[in-house]
Amino acid sequence: MGRSSTAQERLLDAAGDLLHTHGYSALGVAEICARAEVKKGSFYHFFASKQTLTLAAVDAHWTQQRQVWQTLLGTPGRPPLERLRHLLDAQAAAQRADKAGGGSVRGCLLGNLALELSGREPEIQTRLAEIFDEQAALVQGVLAEAAATAPVAADTGTARAVVAQLEGAVLFAKLADDPARLDGLWPAVQRLVRSD
Amino acid sequence: MGRSSTAQERLLDAAGDLLHTHGYSALGVAEICARAEVKKGSFYHFFASKQTLTLAAVDAHWTQQRQVWQTLLGTPGRPPLERLRHLLDAQAAAQRADKAGGGSVRGCLLGNLALELSGREPEIQTRLAEIFDEQAALVQGVLAEAAATAPVAADTGTARAVVAQLEGAVLFAKLADDPARLDGLWPAVQRLVRSD
Repeated sequence: MGRSSTAQERLLDAAGDLLHTHGYSALGVAEICARAEVKKGSFYHFFASKQTLTLAAVDAHWTQQRQVWQTLLGTPGRPPLERLRHLLDAQAAAQRADKAGGGSVRGCLLGNLALELSGREPEIQTRLAEIFDEQAALVQGVLAEAAATAPVAADTGTARAVVAQLEGAVLFAKLADDPARLDGLWPAVQRLVRSD
Repeated sequence: MGRSSTAQERLLDAAGDLLHTHGYSALGVAEICARAEVKKGSFYHFFASKQTLTLAAVDAHWTQQRQVWQTLLGTPGRPPLERLRHLLDAQAAAQRADKAGGGSVRGCLLGNLALELSGREPEIQTRLAEIFDEQAALVQGVLAEAAATAPVAADTGTARAVVAQLEGAVLFAKLADDPARLDGLWPAVQRLVRSD
């Protein structure tokens, strides 16, 4: 892998991490370059703007996360609702790791950007909407499997409500800077998906 | 009411509206002054900083909203869960009004600021956490009334899950720029609060 490819990767990594901590508006290209140890000229060789880099960082984040979601929701031999629980546990674990590692709960990168940039950055907004639709579709798939043998609702609205509950709970964990706010997530989701 | 008092009110109103549309970081004192038709010198007569004004605007917003929550959740002669439904309907109506009036769904001012400023503005973060605790307590009160005659959970975790579902659903309405994303909120909350 050549030197230039590595600089691009470092910019993506730095942007993902700094966007998660500081959000979009409070973050400057200079800060991203400093963290990535890349000169500003090189930045503009790879990315036309902070907006372009943010879009690429969002894609890189979801490409990695999609793999996690698909693995946890598709584990063979495990009951479907237990797989959903493992996915939600993994989200809580990520917030605990953030708190243990960096000192504070940073919430969900995609949710943070969704609230900050909707109405202001249409391209990023569209991409985030597509990603959350993918998340809801993945949840809907596992609910449909569960519905074959249990009183579980597997419609799009229920799947979206599960993702909304996750995002809402993560918002409050971030606001309280307390990952324990996510302890009630699974009991709430269990009630949300009941169809009886 | 003197001229100076009016300027202070205009600054508060302008800040509330502009923070809702643009968020905190993307908003400058100059823009707030221009909207309020107040000179920059007057701004600093009333408020030490954008941070101080934001705190005051958050308080003003919740003082007004608390009244709405208390009225809707406390309407005499109406069944408790129906009052909760009216509160959620009012939140959806506010998003529809935003869309109809300003062209796009702006989400929840408090939720937007919670995700943008947690970890960065401790004083605002603490105030927002207190406000959301008040919201959960108001919801818990109406759930407790409902639990007297129906299988309804009225613990703090359930009340917080209701507020989390509201915030999550509003996030997706903002991201999709579509108030109809809130149509499924009440069915979801009905399932969330069931105790049987």
